[in-house]
Amino acid sequence: MSGISKNKIKWIRSLQLKKNRETEGLFLVEGEKMVQEAMMYCKNQIQYIAYTDSFVSEHLADFEHQLVSEKELEMISSLKTPNKALAVVQIIKSRPSIDNQLVLALDDIQDPGNMGTILRIADWYGIQTIFCSKNTVDCYNPKVVQASMGAIFRIQLSYVDLTKWLKACKSTIYGALLEGENIYTKETLSNGVLLMGNEGKGISKENIEYINEAISIPRFGKAESLNVSVATGIIVSEFVRRQSTN
Amino acid sequence: MSGISKNKIKWIRSLQLKKNRETEGLFLVEGEKMVQEAMMYCKNQIQYIAYTDSFVSEHLADFEHQLVSEKELEMISSLKTPNKALAVVQIIKSRPSIDNQLVLALDDIQDPGNMGTILRIADWYGIQTIFCSKNTVDCYNPKVVQASMGAIFRIQLSYVDLTKWLKACKSTIYGALLEGENIYTKETLSNGVLLMGNEGKGISKENIEYINEAISIPRFGKAESLNVSVATGIIVSEFVRRQSTN
Repeated sequence: MSGISKNKIKWIRSLQLKKNRETEGLFLVEGEKMVQEAMMYCKNQIQYIAYTDSFVSEHLADFEHQLVSEKELEMISSLKTPNKALAVVQIIKSRPSIDNQLVLALDDIQDPGNMGTILRIADWYGIQTIFCSKNTVDCYNPKVVQASMGAIFRIQLSYVDLTKWLKACKSTIYGALLEGENIYTKETLSNGVLLMGNEGKGISKENIEYINEAISIPRFGKAESLNVSVATGIIVSEFVRRQSTN
Repeated sequence: MSGISKNKIKWIRSLQLKKNRETEGLFLVEGEKMVQEAMMYCKNQIQYIAYTDSFVSEHLADFEHQLVSEKELEMISSLKTPNKALAVVQIIKSRPSIDNQLVLALDDIQDPGNMGTILRIADWYGIQTIFCSKNTVDCYNPKVVQASMGAIFRIQLSYVDLTKWLKACKSTIYGALLEGENIYTKETLSNGVLLMGNEGKGISKENIEYINEAISIPRFGKAESLNVSVATGIIVSEFVRRQSTN
């Protein structure tokens, strides 16, 4: 028989809130595939796995695990339709290096879907490092974790005082601005920091002054802007295209 | 004094459902900016505007309009936080041409956010025409309309039997497939149809056979896939980049 204690339910649910994730240094990973990826990429960070009998894994014995009913999984899940497993995973704070690579800097990205999608773009293109302003949505927010499709396990994220960080940064800082230089015709796009701004307000005033190279996706139609995750995808694509075909 | 009739409330709310939009040939546009764009781009299609006293426009007199209270706007709105105005707009069915341009074909895109974002990408890059399979999410779904940020007023959309349509299509059909040719190194990407597939399943089996050129965004990291709207943005960007810099 399964049987998850009230305290465990309370503990897991509490991790849906940022302040509790910060105090405990833990976050939630949900769904069959995501839990399997966590088992592969964050083996040493997994504290607990709850799973239903339809979850199949040969490696469960390596972790603290507990069989739960569908109903119990629903009780601890943040998803509308929970899917076979949930893991509690330790947050590791990293101090990633930024030399000789393209890194992203995110200035107050608010939407969890956008944040997760940007992580996925970084993961696709082999970007290993993202710096976020303190007001950027928490990357351990369950919605971000889900939208990242596993990228959260492979990318080093660091929340910093972004203005201070940009000021001290020795790499070229590229900033995506509507009035920047056309990325298609700009002579060089080399490794450095790509700074992307908030969904509505763009890059904040105090950070704009640290941009070394203002860049822009040229517009051919009438839309006022592109979604920030789409813009990130297009600009990163252009950086990588040039590096990979030169 | 404002005062919106019960019948009007019922009529407007009914348009949140696809079947009613189809029967009536009408859809909803919400929010100050979107209603202003509709007034600019779809002048002759607007049937009715409800607005609160904080909505400012010199052109209201050109339309059937009605002052409503914040509370009344809430009653007719599909948004969590309604914003100053709502318009009822006529759907125009178009038979767009596809010659000598890049057009998009969408194979069962399901998520309203993705659909709106794809419309916005098309609008940014000057793509005027999108063909959708019958099972693609309705572009007049309020969530799609909002996410399109006005693109819905400028792009011609047509829902077709996509398999039949692709079969009859005389332009080059480019299909985004994981195992397609690298878009960065592929020799030519010329005008034609860019076919994008469903979020989970990709391009359907029966449509794959009509692809003339399978293309792909090369992967450098570990993510399994990109979000379909991001992938659309990156591929369209590469088509347009080549055309604009040649």
